[in-house]
Amino acid sequence: MDSKGISKAVINRLPRYYRYLGMLKEDGVERISSSELSRHMNVTASQIRQDLNLFGGFGQQGYGYNVKNLYEEIGKILGLDREYHLIVIGAGRLARAVGCYVGFQEQGFRVTAYFDRNPGKHQGEWDTSIPLYSLEELEGYLKNNRIDIAVLAIPVEAARRIVPVLDSGGVKGIWNFAHTDLKVPDYMTVQSVHLSESLMQLSYKINH
Amino acid sequence: MDSKGISKAVINRLPRYYRYLGMLKEDGVERISSSELSRHMNVTASQIRQDLNLFGGFGQQGYGYNVKNLYEEIGKILGLDREYHLIVIGAGRLARAVGCYVGFQEQGFRVTAYFDRNPGKHQGEWDTSIPLYSLEELEGYLKNNRIDIAVLAIPVEAARRIVPVLDSGGVKGIWNFAHTDLKVPDYMTVQSVHLSESLMQLSYKINH
Repeated sequence: MDSKGISKAVINRLPRYYRYLGMLKEDGVERISSSELSRHMNVTASQIRQDLNLFGGFGQQGYGYNVKNLYEEIGKILGLDREYHLIVIGAGRLARAVGCYVGFQEQGFRVTAYFDRNPGKHQGEWDTSIPLYSLEELEGYLKNNRIDIAVLAIPVEAARRIVPVLDSGGVKGIWNFAHTDLKVPDYMTVQSVHLSESLMQLSYKINH
Repeated sequence: MDSKGISKAVINRLPRYYRYLGMLKEDGVERISSSELSRHMNVTASQIRQDLNLFGGFGQQGYGYNVKNLYEEIGKILGLDREYHLIVIGAGRLARAVGCYVGFQEQGFRVTAYFDRNPGKHQGEWDTSIPLYSLEELEGYLKNNRIDIAVLAIPVEAARRIVPVLDSGGVKGIWNFAHTDLKVPDYMTVQSVHLSESLMQLSYKINH
């Protein structure tokens, strides 16, 4: 599929479509119109039709969308029809929480290892069955294992230093929890979760 | 300050300005032009001037912005010049990770208690000094303590059920990590961190 002309806003909405359709599917709903979907999602019906048309349009006039079909098609667009191997850099609370979250919640995303500067420090609290290695072993690990995504749950400076290692190890995507915007080569992708900024947006809204 | 006419996009950018200015301040930078700030932030200089003008504009022609001053002003706009009391609903890995993150990283945001359906389950792994109570105690706790923000790190159905309790307990803002868009009364605010959707955006980008 050609991704040209797909705006960031649309890409941001696709996972929401996917989530709502997943819920409808779970509830046994077989088909839905764009206006019903619109009521659920707080997006206008014409926006929904426009978004889905970008990918060829899956609706039929007078019928609406087949929920299961649309769910699967959006899943494919999002790249959820394949498996991803992930490593987590960091072994602190946030690293483990995100690593376990992925393991429990997400089909197709498999965490294979954690890496930390000081694995000994976390030995006592290690409560997952996934191995924890020293950061020094990362380069060798990436030579022997194809890793698609690295989760970064480490401080800013450490995150910056690790990017070249991930790059030369063939990692394609970075899920970044460090409090910085990482610079990466064009062929790599960064998706950041800036918790701090999210909290500030909340405090802004509380006060205005 | 009147918040009318301030778009969501601007509000989303303010914490980034705040972060960059904080870094510049740490580095001892005293003043900066919008074009220098633009190079750092990957936002156009005219966008920066336009954003900051919405709040009265803090720059001076030929001088640029005073870093410390602008940092403080944006902090005030974001509501960071006051203290917030937070509770965390949930006591699992993600709940503790987010609670500890706030405690370590954020000035002015103070977590005072955790609540869980089954506190006994988490007794053995309780590694913070902040108390953990049963969810049954939440209503009484909110009567006796002014809480500004509730962090929700619980499943979808539980998150929906807790909203009315938080509402009648005077909680103003919800920082939501449950995998759903919560409906709240107009006078409450929800800010969601949808980890799953963030990961899907990453997988989309890796594949396109």
